[in-house]
Amino acid sequence: MLEERRERRVRELVAEMTLEEKLAQLVGVWLNVNRDEGVVAPLQDSMQGEEVAFEEFARQGLGQITRHYGTRPVEPLRASGALAARQRWLRDKTRLGIPALAHEECLTGVAAWRAAVYPVPPAWGASFDPGLVERMAAAIGADLRLLGVHQGLAPVLDVIRDQRWGRVEECVSEDPYEVATIGAAYVRGLQSAGVIATLKHFVGYSNSRAGRNLAPVHAGPREVADTLLFPFEVAVRDAGAGSVMNSYAEIDGVPMAADAHYLTRVLREEWGFEGTVVADYFSVAFLHTLHAVAEDAEDAAVQALTAGIDVELPTGVAYLEPLRDAVGSGRVDEALVDRALLRVLRQKARLGLLDDDYEPAEPGGPVDLDGPGAREVARLLAEESVVLLANDGVLPLGDAAGRRLAVVGPNADDVAALFGCYSFVQHVLPHFPGVEPGIAAPTLLEALRAEFPGAVIETARGTGVDDGDRSGIPAAARLAAGSDVAIVVLGDRSGLFGRGTSGEGCDAESLELPGAQRELAEAVIATGTPTVVVLMTGRGYAVPGLLRDAAAVVQAFFPGEEGAGAIARVLSGAVNPSGRLPMSLPRSAAGQPYSYLHPKLGGAGSVSNVDPAPALPFGHGLSYTSFAYGGMTAAATAPTGGSITCSVTVRNAGDRRGAEVVQLYAADRVASVTRPVAQLVGYARVELGPGESARVGFEVPARLLAFTGRDGRRVVEPGEVGLSVRRSVADVVEERTVTLTGPVHEITGAEPRLTAVTVEQEL
Amino acid sequence: MLEERRERRVRELVAEMTLEEKLAQLVGVWLNVNRDEGVVAPLQDSMQGEEVAFEEFARQGLGQITRHYGTRPVEPLRASGALAARQRWLRDKTRLGIPALAHEECLTGVAAWRAAVYPVPPAWGASFDPGLVERMAAAIGADLRLLGVHQGLAPVLDVIRDQRWGRVEECVSEDPYEVATIGAAYVRGLQSAGVIATLKHFVGYSNSRAGRNLAPVHAGPREVADTLLFPFEVAVRDAGAGSVMNSYAEIDGVPMAADAHYLTRVLREEWGFEGTVVADYFSVAFLHTLHAVAEDAEDAAVQALTAGIDVELPTGVAYLEPLRDAVGSGRVDEALVDRALLRVLRQKARLGLLDDDYEPAEPGGPVDLDGPGAREVARLLAEESVVLLANDGVLPLGDAAGRRLAVVGPNADDVAALFGCYSFVQHVLPHFPGVEPGIAAPTLLEALRAEFPGAVIETARGTGVDDGDRSGIPAAARLAAGSDVAIVVLGDRSGLFGRGTSGEGCDAESLELPGAQRELAEAVIATGTPTVVVLMTGRGYAVPGLLRDAAAVVQAFFPGEEGAGAIARVLSGAVNPSGRLPMSLPRSAAGQPYSYLHPKLGGAGSVSNVDPAPALPFGHGLSYTSFAYGGMTAAATAPTGGSITCSVTVRNAGDRRGAEVVQLYAADRVASVTRPVAQLVGYARVELGPGESARVGFEVPARLLAFTGRDGRRVVEPGEVGLSVRRSVADVVEERTVTLTGPVHEITGAEPRLTAVTVEQEL
Repeated sequence: MLEERRERRVRELVAEMTLEEKLAQLVGVWLNVNRDEGVVAPLQDSMQGEEVAFEEFARQGLGQITRHYGTRPVEPLRASGALAARQRWLRDKTRLGIPALAHEECLTGVAAWRAAVYPVPPAWGASFDPGLVERMAAAIGADLRLLGVHQGLAPVLDVIRDQRWGRVEECVSEDPYEVATIGAAYVRGLQSAGVIATLKHFVGYSNSRAGRNLAPVHAGPREVADTLLFPFEVAVRDAGAGSVMNSYAEIDGVPMAADAHYLTRVLREEWGFEGTVVADYFSVAFLHTLHAVAEDAEDAAVQALTAGIDVELPTGVAYLEPLRDAVGSGRVDEALVDRALLRVLRQKARLGLLDDDYEPAEPGGPVDLDGPGAREVARLLAEESVVLLANDGVLPLGDAAGRRLAVVGPNADDVAALFGCYSFVQHVLPHFPGVEPGIAAPTLLEALRAEFPGAVIETARGTGVDDGDRSGIPAAARLAAGSDVAIVVLGDRSGLFGRGTSGEGCDAESLELPGAQRELAEAVIATGTPTVVVLMTGRGYAVPGLLRDAAAVVQAFFPGEEGAGAIARVLSGAVNPSGRLPMSLPRSAAGQPYSYLHPKLGGAGSVSNVDPAPALPFGHGLSYTSFAYGGMTAAATAPTGGSITCSVTVRNAGDRRGAEVVQLYAADRVASVTRPVAQLVGYARVELGPGESARVGFEVPARLLAFTGRDGRRVVEPGEVGLSVRRSVADVVEERTVTLTGPVHEITGAEPRLTAVTVEQEL
Repeated sequence: MLEERRERRVRELVAEMTLEEKLAQLVGVWLNVNRDEGVVAPLQDSMQGEEVAFEEFARQGLGQITRHYGTRPVEPLRASGALAARQRWLRDKTRLGIPALAHEECLTGVAAWRAAVYPVPPAWGASFDPGLVERMAAAIGADLRLLGVHQGLAPVLDVIRDQRWGRVEECVSEDPYEVATIGAAYVRGLQSAGVIATLKHFVGYSNSRAGRNLAPVHAGPREVADTLLFPFEVAVRDAGAGSVMNSYAEIDGVPMAADAHYLTRVLREEWGFEGTVVADYFSVAFLHTLHAVAEDAEDAAVQALTAGIDVELPTGVAYLEPLRDAVGSGRVDEALVDRALLRVLRQKARLGLLDDDYEPAEPGGPVDLDGPGAREVARLLAEESVVLLANDGVLPLGDAAGRRLAVVGPNADDVAALFGCYSFVQHVLPHFPGVEPGIAAPTLLEALRAEFPGAVIETARGTGVDDGDRSGIPAAARLAAGSDVAIVVLGDRSGLFGRGTSGEGCDAESLELPGAQRELAEAVIATGTPTVVVLMTGRGYAVPGLLRDAAAVVQAFFPGEEGAGAIARVLSGAVNPSGRLPMSLPRSAAGQPYSYLHPKLGGAGSVSNVDPAPALPFGHGLSYTSFAYGGMTAAATAPTGGSITCSVTVRNAGDRRGAEVVQLYAADRVASVTRPVAQLVGYARVELGPGESARVGFEVPARLLAFTGRDGRRVVEPGEVGLSVRRSVADVVEERTVTLTGPVHEITGAEPRLTAVTVEQEL
């Protein structure tokens, strides 16, 4: 009933709208951007030159309001009032009275001042805990909803392909199955609050040449279909994501914003997607200005609309006057405008924006975007995501009472080391010097002082993240020499467009730690004092020497507002580390791109002197307890259109409670095209007390072994598959051979895409 | 008449042959390989385990004899007698009496003991002199012919895509137009002697992941068609190459040895190729053992034969018993065997091997494979290929009479520094310690002593190529400090499979000079003595600091047996340097892959902090004189199916004779897919005396601007093209806009593919 009424309203509106009113629904507007304060989006100067007046811009109506909260530090309650006022103006003062859809960045928390900041996506990947990620996203969604925001520009579903890329810190994993499962959890969480999730960047962005932001993607259609698209397919089909944002990238010469194959044929015709495709900021104009596949803005608009970009963001450079001219001259059929319009209006209708009783959301009272619930999720996720890479026994430190701890390194006492580049703190506040972060977030030094009240903690910075200043290294080494344990806190400073060593537009040429950080660590280690290296980074760096020489190494990515405490508790032992690497940790400072998902010839062998094996493999992570496996069983056969069942018992063989990530990998031994030597097909995070064990069962859809055959059809072929339980991709515990039987199965989309996992605690 | 008679003979033979006799024609045999002496081909142990007896192996006949000369050091006259004896045995003792086709490596000269060794392909590229390359190849061909060899396994037409790849030293250029023109010249030269050229590696090998040998190629079909195939198309269609060797690589999941699209549809159906496709060594078996796309050797044979591999090399692992079984069981149609067989027999017929009066070639007397003619070509090519990268005026040194020259560095006094990995010296002799190179080749130190008899020359090695031994650096620096000029000779040691720092299987992870060489150069430069750095390398290294701080830098690649003298004469000024970089010289030790042929977003911009611009651009090279340009004219329009005419005057504005490489580039300003910001479309090496000038005219086929459109058709689109004369790709002298007019032109293959160039000396 409600749905029918809403659809009727949409039809009425479309019939009634002028072309200008239609086009106005296909664009956003970005207000309050002060270009003197520096850019927060690439080539932001592609925007109109003058600050626009909202009422002037929106007199024909307005599709979207861009980043109302995420542009300047404004007290959230005040900002929400302003947003509601605009919505009322649209409802009351435009001819058709259609409110705008407000969108906001929200990857690691709402991009608003004083909002909680959670760990970055590689930390989600390290947790291997989709349930907790879903809980985080639900909390983010609830806050967005409270603020009157309808659409969140997350999650990022790019599969990590090259560690040099600055946006690795926005990606979940090197493995598409993990990206899919964690990403789908995020979508479900966010959308559980009635907020639309936006899958980005569709598709190929992470594969840019040499890891340089926006550089062309050199990939064939098979790689795209079999590796890069999978997380998007799962997020659309299994999690029902409401919106998709195109990638800036070109693949093999065709910019995604103009590619009907992916935006329409795959996304809509094959997957049945019914939501909106929104343009990554300025990417419609980029068809002209950066890709040079369009003669002018009008040509760009025509190509993007035709390919399947429904909404131009952040504002209407191409979809207003230029597209109006194109329709007027017959260069593009107005039916394509209506196609996009219908998607936009139906989405607004579903959100209730077209209902007669629409009232803009307004918080009833003071807004707390960082309450105890948020802090708890931020803490749990940070704790689960710390990866213990190496440990000679120095960890855990216990209470360290009476011991001297030297805490050195550029990230030891810097609150910025906790946050990724799409957090409000890193994204917006650098443009507003002097404005407080607005959230409580102890640095690691502060957290260590709290965690070890009985220890003597002294500190020295040693060097900056990337200043290369070696002058402080001797003092730091002297401090370490006089201490019982040294804790060296290294890593990145996240930021945008060259303001950081990680983040959008902050790519790396090599994977050496920035600046003089390696030298600092080496100097401290050389003192002979047992040294714990803590890495707070946005990517996987090549630190083979530190892995070899330090007493322990801990990888934390950017762990969020509760991250410092989480790391401190891992060091003390209050938290037993359970994170696993969501990416290969490279062995050399060069040698990229690399993915563990390579066929045999992509790995080590006798045909090249260069061994691309990483320093530490995907899935690696240590614990303070140990886990034993046994009793792996697997069905000997499974139909190509069915699923493979297997199970294994895992037991906590140590004397502490802890969590193991049981990892299941498959390898298609012979196929008509080359296939990876291993691919993750299932995992389970299992928490066990000492001596406890659990039986973990997997039902793996054979569809996970599908690939694009030589004729372009996506198929599951019969034949032998190696199915293995591993501690990491490089550490096989047990392997079974399963024979896929029956005919070549062409996938239809109806097959399950995700492995069903059961965990039964054993007594 | 002769042709008809030969075709009749072929038909008769096919009708008469048993399956075993047919298959015997599709394989080679490699004798005298002693595996204890180490490998000269990748995974050579894929060969049969036992040394085979020729007469046993060849009793059904034999397709090819593999590397009769290039396997062990044997006196050429004696070896040729043995080869002729085998041919007579085949003629007289096998049922059908068909001689074998003998093939040999010959990239930089015949792979035989005591044969001339010429500069490596990047040096050919640096010369920009196809005429001289043709002359070299004709000399190589004549020697092959003299020795009874019918087919040479050269040239390599892979377009350089990643400097980390060890086989960059076997490639001509980063630019496909240059590869095509130089490569076609090589083919014409070699085939002028009646010897079949073999184009390799068809296609994609140079694009392997992270530059690791045989690693998968991540590329789309457009990149392959528009960039990588072009040199092969020119060599087949314009130069009439008689054979093609497949690439080991897979592209986007499909190994080339099993890819009918490229081996049959493109090569034969589209290009009309009628020669043979021979397997790169062991690559048929690799479909099973390395790529895992075949169940076993039989499956591999079926796939390779079906795709279009006619001849298995080096021997018959898959095409004998396994293929016989496959035909026997009906798994593959014998017609496919006959298809390959006909190509093989027709080639033998054209070579006269099936004629009644066939007699094996035998040199009439002593064989000199390194006579004065060869030495002259080797000298000229070396001289033309030395690239003066930087010069503050220290060069030329003149006679340096009475001056103290310090000659340091690992490549100063090492004859091996002159040769590439496919030379007999580097390829075979390392397995035979104590055997003399067999050719006269002074080291650079010796050549400098000869060139500067009046100078005081002292020497110190400083460090090894890659041993990282810094102990000799202080002594080298002291020597430099006491000298008037220091000459620091750095670079690679070419070798195979980890035995070198450049060459097949010797890939690099970064592009830092190997070992401690940079430190040696820096220590010498730091003395304040004017320092000339000479690079004898197989790839372009990142040496931005040396380019900035040294008094002069000279790039020589591996310059061949006459190379040391050529470099010495460039340093003295007896030769005015005229080489131009055939590849971008990277700025950083990482940042690969990189090609100058990138669309706008592949270059520098505001969207990434990483600037991929090379330290020195493609086409760069200095001279001791200077050249001035003027009077560029270009037709304002040209039809999409026609050609663009333009011309420019170049004048030697200095006081010395010298040669300029006039470079013409085009840029398609807006196209339906992204296009490179510049592409080479013509060049002319012009030698001029002081004050002399020449008018250089170009007629550029619009077809050079063709690309694969969004619908997969290869087209030339109407629109504006920027046409520019440049000193290097980064140094525009003059630019004109040419408008391509008319309809979108779909290329047919009938269009000219090469730019016609005229050079008229002006008075």
